Amino acid sequence: MSLADRVAELAADIEPVDEEAAAAALARHATLAKPPGSLGALEAVGARLAAIAAECPPPVPAAPAVIVAAADHGVHAQGVTPWPQSITAAMVATICAGRASVNALAATAGARVAVLDVGVAGPPTAHPLARRARVRDGTADLTQGPAMSRDEAAKALLAGAGLVEELVAAGVDLVVTGDMGIANTTASACLVAAITGAAPAAVTGPGAAGPDAVARKVAVVERALALHRPDPGDPLGVLAAVGGLEHAALAGIVLAGAAERLPVVLDGVITCAAALAAVALAPDALGYLLAGHRSPEPGAAVALDQLGLDPLLDLGLRLGEGTGGLAAVPLVVSAARLLRDVATIDELG
Amino acid sequence: MSLADRVAELAADIEPVDEEAAAAALARHATLAKPPGSLGALEAVGARLAAIAAECPPPVPAAPAVIVAAADHGVHAQGVTPWPQSITAAMVATICAGRASVNALAATAGARVAVLDVGVAGPPTAHPLARRARVRDGTADLTQGPAMSRDEAAKALLAGAGLVEELVAAGVDLVVTGDMGIANTTASACLVAAITGAAPAAVTGPGAAGPDAVARKVAVVERALALHRPDPGDPLGVLAAVGGLEHAALAGIVLAGAAERLPVVLDGVITCAAALAAVALAPDALGYLLAGHRSPEPGAAVALDQLGLDPLLDLGLRLGEGTGGLAAVPLVVSAARLLRDVATIDELG
Repeated sequence: MSLADRVAELAADIEPVDEEAAAAALARHATLAKPPGSLGALEAVGARLAAIAAECPPPVPAAPAVIVAAADHGVHAQGVTPWPQSITAAMVATICAGRASVNALAATAGARVAVLDVGVAGPPTAHPLARRARVRDGTADLTQGPAMSRDEAAKALLAGAGLVEELVAAGVDLVVTGDMGIANTTASACLVAAITGAAPAAVTGPGAAGPDAVARKVAVVERALALHRPDPGDPLGVLAAVGGLEHAALAGIVLAGAAERLPVVLDGVITCAAALAAVALAPDALGYLLAGHRSPEPGAAVALDQLGLDPLLDLGLRLGEGTGGLAAVPLVVSAARLLRDVATIDELG
Repeated sequence: MSLADRVAELAADIEPVDEEAAAAALARHATLAKPPGSLGALEAVGARLAAIAAECPPPVPAAPAVIVAAADHGVHAQGVTPWPQSITAAMVATICAGRASVNALAATAGARVAVLDVGVAGPPTAHPLARRARVRDGTADLTQGPAMSRDEAAKALLAGAGLVEELVAAGVDLVVTGDMGIANTTASACLVAAITGAAPAAVTGPGAAGPDAVARKVAVVERALALHRPDPGDPLGVLAAVGGLEHAALAGIVLAGAAERLPVVLDGVITCAAALAAVALAPDALGYLLAGHRSPEPGAAVALDQLGLDPLLDLGLRLGEGTGGLAAVPLVVSAARLLRDVATIDELG
C-alpha cells in the first residue's frame, strides 16, 4: 500500500461524532441543579465530549497527553525570524529535560508530554520523552521549491498518527497538539492561506519575531503561493508544497485522535493550520476538535473561523509548544465532571 | 473591642503587595526560554503572585480552597427571582454532599470546599464541609429598611475572616470566593451601584431569573438606593443597608486573605460586589485579588472596571458558587510554575 493510500485509509477510519449524545448532554444540563445555561461554554464543551464519546455523560478525561511535533524549516533562510534554527533542537532537549513552558502547563493539566522529532535539523535528543521519527533534517525552502515530497509529507503524517495509536494503547484518552519549529509560523501562514483562500496579509503575523518581520513574512508567503499555486482540494499536496514536517505530523495526530474517538485540543496557529489540512483530508475529524485558545496570530483566527471553532481561552498566549491547548484541559475535564457528578433539580428534594 | 473596631483592625493588618517582586517576575519572564511576552496573561498573573508573596519566583499554590458563603435575602419578597428561597438551604446540602457544580470544578482544581452559613433562612446542614456561623436567618427586605444592622454586617464579615484564618492554619494557600443565596444578585446590584455610583440599570442583570426580571430588579435597586442613600465612604454601612450576609462574609474573606498574603480569586458578580466593599474598607486588599472570570452580569463588569481587574476567563459562566473562580485556578497555578520551572535562554546552551 502506498503512503498516500495509508493516509487515505486513516482518514476513512474516522466516524462522525454522535450528535444525539450531544443533544442528550444539553438536555441533561437543563435538568441539573443550577439555572439553565448558567455554565455557558462548559455546557457546550460537555456536549462536544458526549458527541465524541458517543455517550452521555461522557467519560472524564483522566490521562491527557500533549504531543509536541518538532521540525525545522528551509524557509528560515529567507530571514523570517531572528531566532537561529538551532533553537528547535535546543528546545526539544529542554522539553525532554522538563524545563520548557509546555512542561509547566502539562504538570498542571496532569498531562504526559511526548516530543515527536519528525524533522529537526539539529542533533537528535535521546530521551524517553522523545520519539525519533525524522523524515528529513528539516524541509527545503518553500520559496524555491516544494518544502518536501508528497511521500515525505505522508511519512510525517503517519508518524504523528502512529504516536497517537501508541499513546492510546498506553491509556491516553485526550490529546493536546503542540509544536516546536523555528520559522513555522511562516509555513502556517502559507497553509492557512492555501486552504482557506485568505490573503497572505490576513493570515501572517509576527510569530516569535517582532512586528517588523511581518511585511517580510507576507512577501515570503505571497512568493510561495505564487510559485506553488497549491490546490486546496489536495491537502497532502498543500502540506508537501508549503507546510512543515510538524504540520504534517500534527495533521496525522488529529486524524488518529479522531479515528480513536478522542477529544483533540488544538493550540495556536501551527496546530490550527495543521487541523485545516486534517479536516480537508477527513471532514468528520472536525467533530473531535476543541480549540484551546485564541492565539493573537491572525492565521489562527482565520483557521478557527473556517473550522467554526470557538476557543475556550483568550490569554494572549503566542508561544506554541501546546501551552494554550494544555491551559484549556482543566476546563475540558470540568465540563465532563459536571455532566457526571452534578445532582439534578429533582434530586434536590 | 467593638465589632466595627475588629473589622478596622483586620483592615489595618493588610500590607501592600510588593511591586518590586512583581517587577522581578516580569524581568525573569524576559529571560526565559521563549519569545518575550509570549505567555501573555500568564506572565501578568505570575507577576501578581510574586507581588502577593513578596518573592520571585512565587510559591506554586498547592492547597487552594473555595469558600462558599451562603445566606438568604429578605428582598426575595419583592419577586426578584422565580426560585424559592428554600433552594439556598437545599444547595448548601447539595454542596456538602459533593454534588453541586462547585464540587466538580473544585475537583479539577484540587481545591477543598468549605461552606459558610452566615445567614441561610432554611434548615442548617450538619456536615464536615459546613461551618455554621449564622448571624440571622436571612436579611430583612432592603426595600423596607436596612438589610441588617451594622453589628450584624460586622459579625458576618468577621465570620468570613475567621474561616480564612482557620483554613490558612490548615495549610490553605489560595482562596477562591464563592456564594450561594437566592436573590443575591439584587443585593449585589445595590452594592455595586452604591459603591461605584453607577446607575441601577447599568449594574442589574437577570441573575438566575430570565431577562424579563431585569426591569423589576432595577426598580427594586432604585427604591433601595433612594431609601438608604448609602454613603460609599462607609462600606460597613453600605453592606448593612443593602448587602447580604454572604456579601459581608465575602468581604471578610477578601480582607483576611489579603492580611494572610494569599492570592484571592474572585468569582462572579456577588463576589465582585463584596470585593468592592472590602477594597473600600482596605485599599491595599486590591493587590491580592485576581479576577477569575468575566460574568455576563453587568454589575460584575462595572465592579471589575472599578477595581481595575482583568479577568482570566470569559466563558459565559453565571452560576456563582465559586465556579468561575475555580475554573481559573489551574491558570494561576501554571503562572507560578512557569516562573519556578522554566529554563532561561542562557541555560539552553
